[in-house]
Amino acid sequence: MPATQTSSRLVGELVKIFGESSVMSSPSSLEDYRRDMADYEGMPVVVIKPASEAEVVRLVQFATKNRVPIVPRGAGSSLTGAAVLEGAIVLDMRKMSKILKVDLVNWYVQVQPGISLDDLNVELKKKGFFFPPDPASSYICTVGGAIAEGSGGMRCVKYGTMKDWVISVRVVLPNGEVARFGEPLAKNRAGYDLLHLMVGSEGTLGIITEAHLKIIPLPAETIRRLLTTFSEWEAVSNTINDLRTSRIMPNLFEFLDRESIAALNQKLEQNHEEAEATLLLDIEEQLLEKVVAILRSHGAGKITIARDEEEAEKMYQLRAMVYLAVKSLASGVQVEDVAVPLDRLGEYFKLVKSVAAKYGLKIPVNGHAGDGNVHPNILYDRDDPASRTKAMAAYEEICRFAIGVGGSVTGEHGIGIQKMKFLREQLVSHEGKEALRLMKEIKKIFDPEGIMNPGKYVEGA
Amino acid sequence: MPATQTSSRLVGELVKIFGESSVMSSPSSLEDYRRDMADYEGMPVVVIKPASEAEVVRLVQFATKNRVPIVPRGAGSSLTGAAVLEGAIVLDMRKMSKILKVDLVNWYVQVQPGISLDDLNVELKKKGFFFPPDPASSYICTVGGAIAEGSGGMRCVKYGTMKDWVISVRVVLPNGEVARFGEPLAKNRAGYDLLHLMVGSEGTLGIITEAHLKIIPLPAETIRRLLTTFSEWEAVSNTINDLRTSRIMPNLFEFLDRESIAALNQKLEQNHEEAEATLLLDIEEQLLEKVVAILRSHGAGKITIARDEEEAEKMYQLRAMVYLAVKSLASGVQVEDVAVPLDRLGEYFKLVKSVAAKYGLKIPVNGHAGDGNVHPNILYDRDDPASRTKAMAAYEEICRFAIGVGGSVTGEHGIGIQKMKFLREQLVSHEGKEALRLMKEIKKIFDPEGIMNPGKYVEGA
Repeated sequence: MPATQTSSRLVGELVKIFGESSVMSSPSSLEDYRRDMADYEGMPVVVIKPASEAEVVRLVQFATKNRVPIVPRGAGSSLTGAAVLEGAIVLDMRKMSKILKVDLVNWYVQVQPGISLDDLNVELKKKGFFFPPDPASSYICTVGGAIAEGSGGMRCVKYGTMKDWVISVRVVLPNGEVARFGEPLAKNRAGYDLLHLMVGSEGTLGIITEAHLKIIPLPAETIRRLLTTFSEWEAVSNTINDLRTSRIMPNLFEFLDRESIAALNQKLEQNHEEAEATLLLDIEEQLLEKVVAILRSHGAGKITIARDEEEAEKMYQLRAMVYLAVKSLASGVQVEDVAVPLDRLGEYFKLVKSVAAKYGLKIPVNGHAGDGNVHPNILYDRDDPASRTKAMAAYEEICRFAIGVGGSVTGEHGIGIQKMKFLREQLVSHEGKEALRLMKEIKKIFDPEGIMNPGKYVEGA
Repeated sequence: MPATQTSSRLVGELVKIFGESSVMSSPSSLEDYRRDMADYEGMPVVVIKPASEAEVVRLVQFATKNRVPIVPRGAGSSLTGAAVLEGAIVLDMRKMSKILKVDLVNWYVQVQPGISLDDLNVELKKKGFFFPPDPASSYICTVGGAIAEGSGGMRCVKYGTMKDWVISVRVVLPNGEVARFGEPLAKNRAGYDLLHLMVGSEGTLGIITEAHLKIIPLPAETIRRLLTTFSEWEAVSNTINDLRTSRIMPNLFEFLDRESIAALNQKLEQNHEEAEATLLLDIEEQLLEKVVAILRSHGAGKITIARDEEEAEKMYQLRAMVYLAVKSLASGVQVEDVAVPLDRLGEYFKLVKSVAAKYGLKIPVNGHAGDGNVHPNILYDRDDPASRTKAMAAYEEICRFAIGVGGSVTGEHGIGIQKMKFLREQLVSHEGKEALRLMKEIKKIFDPEGIMNPGKYVEGA
């Protein structure tokens, strides 16, 4: 049967099950799901917005019966192609966006997967609590997406990533059964840890329909946010190394290079000093003096300390908006996500500079210098094959450098379709060949029919 | 071939490979490995003390070839039978006890599995750092054992358990291959999380030969340790509930009942007030006043604040020694480890009291009230079948209560052979039937020949 006939049959059957309003198949509505935030592409055959776990179960059963792959999707803010797949049924989970319980004794929140991290934090703030992981896309990215991606963010230098904050998930497995992994408890040792298999599973093991997330009180101590500049990148890596050996943990330690600030000035119509290196820091009040001294000892320029929450928020938005600002500089951007040991950050900076020079590319650099996860944004011309080739070569050099110094090819964005080759390279190079074999086996026992986001991630490595 | 002949052949071959000094097979040396700390029993055929990962690999290959099961063991301080197995080769990992690297920039320590947690912390303290998880057995328990058991401890109310502190392990898999899971990095998203499968795997998936553990600076803020008493248990659960809703996180919140204090007074020849309930708390200086007010509002008796480190350590030792003190009260003790939601702690206390009364048993109660993981120590007479039956009935009622209120049958001690039945009951009752199926499949892909600590834990559930 021709593809179009197959898809109209599928759509017809899905409409019978879920009703017109939950099934989207018009070219214009499919177009909205064709890309992720990094412009990886894959045109779905149909998009469903399930309203309940029961609907997800029926959809999985339907997909298995009809042998059509499924991709669960939140806001599609993946940067690695994890949320798009040609010919798939896409499950847009954003209709399931309720906060089911905020537990102020046990300090957790029970939520549906479709709520955005920012919306969750708005509610928690009213009660004096917060949920720490804060990817730059937190204004749209969903809890389900953040769990599936094992997302990080700016506050992760102090608080860790999603893996440190999820205590239980409900999952619809590829066989249509519902399972709960983990328990909404402070402590639980009952069985192998399947919960953490789901964190960072990138939609390949099952569909998250509910989660319990740890929450904590908003910090009682006063946190000061500051912005400062340096005339060279090396000062940034030296500063973080110096802070760490001084046993100081900043709450935020973000780096923006000259090109990133220039892009932000243009995008936001602001006027920040376009220094070689800009640092955004959160520091506990009682450490402020010590940190300022360390910054000065490494040649910091003007140090601006936010006077109020509004100014602090404006500083934060600089970093949060930088990907969108940089993205508008070129038709193509390959945003890199390697993580290196902190004591190798200085070498990493040099490598990125030399790669940019070698290929004649613009590579604005920004990100989480406090945990060794700084993103080079490799700009290229999508319509120029030579430019794309150079960008790919630069990307590969950066990944191989990271692997070589004991780093990871991904600190927080995951593998998706982007890095399957490098997932293999990293694991093989870091004595993880057997780990890769076991990962592939695990994929098979969860998804023997291969319907969950197939061909990607571990399976493609 | 008769069993004795088989075992002398095995021992002979092992001596050829590893040399006399690493192979123990005399009745007296085997006797040292016949029990764990809770007196679960299983006589090994031989005990090997490997000196290197290469020796572990050779041993695993040998065991597979000869189809003899292996049990990796640290100090044997398991309380659930995880470290003993009739007819097994026991690998005592304590010869591999080096600290390989203390990294003061990346804040991790790279260690062999045989070092004890206390020995590790002695070294870290010299550099101003510490490793938080602190099971009561930390004076002997090894890093490898603590990872395999996913151990908790007193500081876990603030810092979490082992799962929150391990970032990478090297493992000898049952097929004799070496694999590394995780990366010694602040952030890493490369592949499914096999690292957390190893944490709490209870020696059933592989043998840990090295680990990278996160470390953090010793707290900069002043922590005050205090001891106080109440005339009823209910005040304890009300106090922790009140602290939590007041958004206060104690660094330590330990409960000891009258019988526990009495046992300690006897064991340590001390003279503490034998109140109905004693609480041991660590509180940050700036919260002290607020916490004392909350304690008083719930009817606290005398509040003793430690004047110096020595006095603070003495208070800590009360809690650390309580299991050994209580154990000497009876020939048998079933130490229970359920974890309940904090808002159900009051009901849990009532249940334990009523169970003790119903069966006419002594059940000293103590433990981590701050995270809902309070241990009843069910005393019985090992040589009296009726007493043992009553103890088992009490134990079962406590486990079923925990399952019924959404708790876990184990907060930190694990499953071993003790709780296989209840692992199943908990998972089935908490929508984890599919989770149990997947766990069993995972065991099979790691250990298809079934040589690693077989018949226990997930496999036996």
